[in-house]
Amino acid sequence: MKLLERHDTGAVARLCLNAPDRLNALSDAMLAALQDQLDALAQDRDIRVVVISGAGRAFCAGHDLREMQAARQAADGGAAAFADLFARCARVMTGITTLPQVVIAQVHGIATAAGCQLVASCDMAVAAEGTRFGVNGVNIGLFCSTPMVALTRNIPRKAAFEMLTTGRLIEAPEAQALGLVNRVVPPDALAAETLALAQTVAAKLGAAVRIGKSAFYAQADLPLDQAYAHAGAVMAENMSWRDTEEGIAAFLEKRRPDWQG
Amino acid sequence: MKLLERHDTGAVARLCLNAPDRLNALSDAMLAALQDQLDALAQDRDIRVVVISGAGRAFCAGHDLREMQAARQAADGGAAAFADLFARCARVMTGITTLPQVVIAQVHGIATAAGCQLVASCDMAVAAEGTRFGVNGVNIGLFCSTPMVALTRNIPRKAAFEMLTTGRLIEAPEAQALGLVNRVVPPDALAAETLALAQTVAAKLGAAVRIGKSAFYAQADLPLDQAYAHAGAVMAENMSWRDTEEGIAAFLEKRRPDWQG
Amino acid sequence: MKLLERHDTGAVARLCLNAPDRLNALSDAMLAALQDQLDALAQDRDIRVVVISGAGRAFCAGHDLREMQAARQAADGGAAAFADLFARCARVMTGITTLPQVVIAQVHGIATAAGCQLVASCDMAVAAEGTRFGVNGVNIGLFCSTPMVALTRNIPRKAAFEMLTTGRLIEAPEAQALGLVNRVVPPDALAAETLALAQTVAAKLGAAVRIGKSAFYAQADLPLDQAYAHAGAVMAENMSWRDTEEGIAAFLEKRRPDWQG
Repeated sequence: MKLLERHDTGAVARLCLNAPDRLNALSDAMLAALQDQLDALAQDRDIRVVVISGAGRAFCAGHDLREMQAARQAADGGAAAFADLFARCARVMTGITTLPQVVIAQVHGIATAAGCQLVASCDMAVAAEGTRFGVNGVNIGLFCSTPMVALTRNIPRKAAFEMLTTGRLIEAPEAQALGLVNRVVPPDALAAETLALAQTVAAKLGAAVRIGKSAFYAQADLPLDQAYAHAGAVMAENMSWRDTEEGIAAFLEKRRPDWQG
Repeated sequence: MKLLERHDTGAVARLCLNAPDRLNALSDAMLAALQDQLDALAQDRDIRVVVISGAGRAFCAGHDLREMQAARQAADGGAAAFADLFARCARVMTGITTLPQVVIAQVHGIATAAGCQLVASCDMAVAAEGTRFGVNGVNIGLFCSTPMVALTRNIPRKAAFEMLTTGRLIEAPEAQALGLVNRVVPPDALAAETLALAQTVAAKLGAAVRIGKSAFYAQADLPLDQAYAHAGAVMAENMSWRDTEEGIAAFLEKRRPDWQG
Repeated sequence: MKLLERHDTGAVARLCLNAPDRLNALSDAMLAALQDQLDALAQDRDIRVVVISGAGRAFCAGHDLREMQAARQAADGGAAAFADLFARCARVMTGITTLPQVVIAQVHGIATAAGCQLVASCDMAVAAEGTRFGVNGVNIGLFCSTPMVALTRNIPRKAAFEMLTTGRLIEAPEAQALGLVNRVVPPDALAAETLALAQTVAAKLGAAVRIGKSAFYAQADLPLDQAYAHAGAVMAENMSWRDTEEGIAAFLEKRRPDWQG
């Protein structure tokens, strides 16, 4: 069994965190496996959508605490190791955002601390009924500062502050209402519903989704005028493609497009 | 019939997109008519609120695709025309934000692509039950990159991403829950409810609403300290007006203010 | 009776605005009393959480309008006084954000204008059923420009715009749905529920909550990469503490942590 399994279904790559006895902790090895897959996917033009799920009873319970405690044996008490760990983790999380493919979290059981950060970092998320989400590091004296970065870019301010300072776990419907997940489905429909969402996106013109995802994050924090300048340039480029010309023509002629991309 | 009709009711100017057979597409002519009205309204001190609605069965279905395809006949394949189109469209959308008057979208039927952008760009929006909203350009290979700019400044991140990459239309109640519209009313009450909202705003002290709208967008993206510096200066200026002195005095004396503005 | 009462319960300081006959207006004296308490609390390592409530039938109805009108008697018509007032008010509001302690608003009755700003400025808020919130200065010709700064950092754009330009008051459940308050409780449970929330946070490792609150606001407006660089450094420092090492060890050993902090 590999630590991070990958099964492709057409243009959808399904990654499964596979360390169920550790609640799929983001250990050094797991982060490296994720980074390797992201690096490979970034070069892979056949895959259009990536689904990340977890094996066993939880999606992901965050960092590997035993491994972190062990790092304290170093001469510096672990200082260099911790700085490196959070940098590697942030690289994976921001790598999801910059990946050319759309990334969907398929979440069940619990998604806590860096596991919740992983959900927040994905472009979309589908959760099984019964899933609980939290940034509960504060309960053990370790505030979820890096998960906070992703969480606060998904949900309203006061709700995020409460989760971070109380450690309270929220249920799936509340996570949906807050904006942390897109939809909540029965547990036995989770894989199928997530795959259906992935395939819906994968059936679109790939180049349009790619250029759109990139523009989505590029324009998000820009002043309005700059955001429009960027998005306008992207959309003009999009218009210049043969497949887009064909897509519009097909729509006007009420037929299916004949896309090459 | 004019492409963009205008009927004023007191201090409320009601603009109606009037190309129902094209679902009120934002053609070159429609964008020009909107820009002309915005330019005129910016100089008009009698109008305090603007309502934008659409004739026929839809509010607005976005750009005029036939016109865009025709532009490909140019020597450059339409590149200059497309860049110009998205710049003119962005100028209209940002012009709504910078207009001295409050702008309210009165939405029914469908509001898709640049039509959804128009809703998102207005200061407020009232929707009829049954209205559907979408940024569904991805379905024809043209990602709604410029509509995204307005949409992502209205609704949470993951919901926006899903709309953009799946092309799914959302119903009015979901649009309200997400923050895209302020209220949902029965179709036969749409015009009256929107006008009532407009008249509520129009009955306030005009200068206060004007200075407030301007400050609203100016402070939105500033760091907290700078936002307070800006808003504090605006509020001190507001306090210096004779009508504001009168408004406060009237409130303290439990009488109606005698406003000159 | 003092204008601002303080009663400490363990590590929780409860501040009570105590000018009920003026609906706890943020007069010059009240702002000064709040600033004094914030200054004192910033140096107080025994207090971990601050609760702000109001005596009488309202939480706070905003600025003291009689005092503001009186300031017009100055040679400059009050210009200097108003600029100074909004600067002092902004200093209190931003001081809540920069305070080392977590600050919770305990809200009942009404929270309007700068009173609504006070709720929005707190890290969290608990409201009694029946509480109404508004930024209704527009009704008297004084747009709530400074309250807007805090409000727009709590709730979606169009909802904020409507509140500001119509002066409409919203009920507690709507305030919760929009993100302005964390929870709504029966009036006779308000004090106890707020204190319970405060004590939940006060029971965490104090240094972790402090460093986390500071990072919360520091990273909020940064680009993603910079936010992660900041949060990663904070989290690495957090890991270096003896109490955090103990907290993680206790968790792994399924025992209660022996914290010194």
